[in-house]
Amino acid sequence: MTVVVIDANLDPLRAEFEAALPDGVSVSWPDARDTAAVEAAVKGADVLVSGKCDGRMAAIATRLRLVHAAGAGTDGIDIASLAPGTQVANTFHHEDSIAEYAVSAAILLRRGFLRQHDALRRARWDSPAYDPSSPWVDTLGAATVGFVGFGHIGARCWQRFRAFGARGVAVTRRGEVDAAAEGLAWSGTIADLGSLLESSDVVVVSAPLTPGTTGLIGAAELSRMRPAAVLVNVGRGPVVDEDALYRALSDRAIGGAALDVWYRYPADGHSAAPGNHPFETLDNVLMTPHSSGLTRETFARRADDIAANIGRLAAGEPLRNVVAVAP
Amino acid sequence: MTVVVIDANLDPLRAEFEAALPDGVSVSWPDARDTAAVEAAVKGADVLVSGKCDGRMAAIATRLRLVHAAGAGTDGIDIASLAPGTQVANTFHHEDSIAEYAVSAAILLRRGFLRQHDALRRARWDSPAYDPSSPWVDTLGAATVGFVGFGHIGARCWQRFRAFGARGVAVTRRGEVDAAAEGLAWSGTIADLGSLLESSDVVVVSAPLTPGTTGLIGAAELSRMRPAAVLVNVGRGPVVDEDALYRALSDRAIGGAALDVWYRYPADGHSAAPGNHPFETLDNVLMTPHSSGLTRETFARRADDIAANIGRLAAGEPLRNVVAVAP
Repeated sequence: MTVVVIDANLDPLRAEFEAALPDGVSVSWPDARDTAAVEAAVKGADVLVSGKCDGRMAAIATRLRLVHAAGAGTDGIDIASLAPGTQVANTFHHEDSIAEYAVSAAILLRRGFLRQHDALRRARWDSPAYDPSSPWVDTLGAATVGFVGFGHIGARCWQRFRAFGARGVAVTRRGEVDAAAEGLAWSGTIADLGSLLESSDVVVVSAPLTPGTTGLIGAAELSRMRPAAVLVNVGRGPVVDEDALYRALSDRAIGGAALDVWYRYPADGHSAAPGNHPFETLDNVLMTPHSSGLTRETFARRADDIAANIGRLAAGEPLRNVVAVAP
Repeated sequence: MTVVVIDANLDPLRAEFEAALPDGVSVSWPDARDTAAVEAAVKGADVLVSGKCDGRMAAIATRLRLVHAAGAGTDGIDIASLAPGTQVANTFHHEDSIAEYAVSAAILLRRGFLRQHDALRRARWDSPAYDPSSPWVDTLGAATVGFVGFGHIGARCWQRFRAFGARGVAVTRRGEVDAAAEGLAWSGTIADLGSLLESSDVVVVSAPLTPGTTGLIGAAELSRMRPAAVLVNVGRGPVVDEDALYRALSDRAIGGAALDVWYRYPADGHSAAPGNHPFETLDNVLMTPHSSGLTRETFARRADDIAANIGRLAAGEPLRNVVAVAP
């Protein structure tokens, strides 16, 4: 059995990953930018480990039986182009890493530490103990945290916020969350989004991007948020309308935002303005490069999952985390 | 009974504080910068609510029966100058606020979010998913957090870090911490400081400043820290030697530091370089203006404590949180 890995996030885990595979499996790690090497590798491969497989690659990789993303998203895999019966699987394990980000960013913005840091670098003590014009702030113990989306990520974020004494509320598309079982004050459907925004001091967006969620939080929704409230987006950028978000932040209609997901990504390399507006000019925004889930722990556990699924494929056993089978 | 309040942190809580006092108590709130007003107010006062009372003020305020700090520190109160029998009391309630700071700052620095934020503001995606030279990072679940000092603050910080799956170790002056009861991997005395520094990924300093703790963490101690480890100082600046700390950070001998307590404070107003070294030029330091405990919740609970103690004094009952009685 031959396996091709095309995901730079797995490169540091190469030795551990290969050691976890069954005997007799050969693995190649072509450089994603070397088209000829990639094509030569995938041509006879049984398994492709990558979140991307377009129609062109599928046409070359005719022997594939499994395309395994090293993450949750399989939207870069063109399932219809794959040979009939090819399985597509994914893996998670980014919940702890993202929950750390959400809690840390919410505290940082809510307490004004980012603004105070910028000020103290200029020798100004921006705190009400030294400057009466500096605002008083509150702990998470006094906060309601509203979750827009409550899947793996939202639920783990809530577990962490809860440890600080916060109150939680959640809305999901279908309203399937059991508030009492989760320790939330209430849960509802997307029809309750306005109530959630009006009652929350921190809003954590982890909803996936679908036609139904694009622009879900626009100007009307942002205007319902509390003036000091903080938005944390760890879902996908376009779930929050970019123009409306930039305006709300620059007008200080909301307290701040921690943005880990964006509107523009580097096509190649590591340079790109992340949006069409100059978010970098705002002092109430924490800007991170889609790194909230990116830790050694996340990818070590993902590599374990993928190796285990390849073992199952080799043994003729059913795979786990199968999200689609090519028709 | 007359009460004089000289603490700007209580000004926003004036109405609540006065409402919590017994009938018949009169309260004045002189401007601390107006010497004549302060002297006139304290002259006949029974109670002074302030963290500062020097010999000069004590000589004027001869009727004082209680000096109540609106915080933990009473080092600004010259107890020997007070009339015999005058009680000195303090209050806490900053633990939750400081624990939020310590956790948020540790995650921010450990995960590289502050550096990534600075980079993305310049359109550079500083994450290993986009730039192979960007370092991989770890969650708190993979971290050992070492506590130098484990009083009210250290213990509350540990409760919060623990919720993220971290391992904890602690040293205190007398080694009185019961590791098993606290859920720590081990605890020891200050003789174990070196072992703690060598085994910790996050070091939280909350020890008080005493002749015995000044410079407790110097060049030799910093050199025992792990190269990626993060130092969080919420105790007092000089517990960590300034020259040695600046050198360790600028040489990148340690991963970073979150500094909320400093070496220089504003004499008046809100401007002062916080140290003798240019910490503001370092990208691995979070600089905050001694604000980690400064929230509405902290001072609301402190005001309640002080009002309750004044009620006890009026009723002839024993006070709580008495730290000294003038001899």
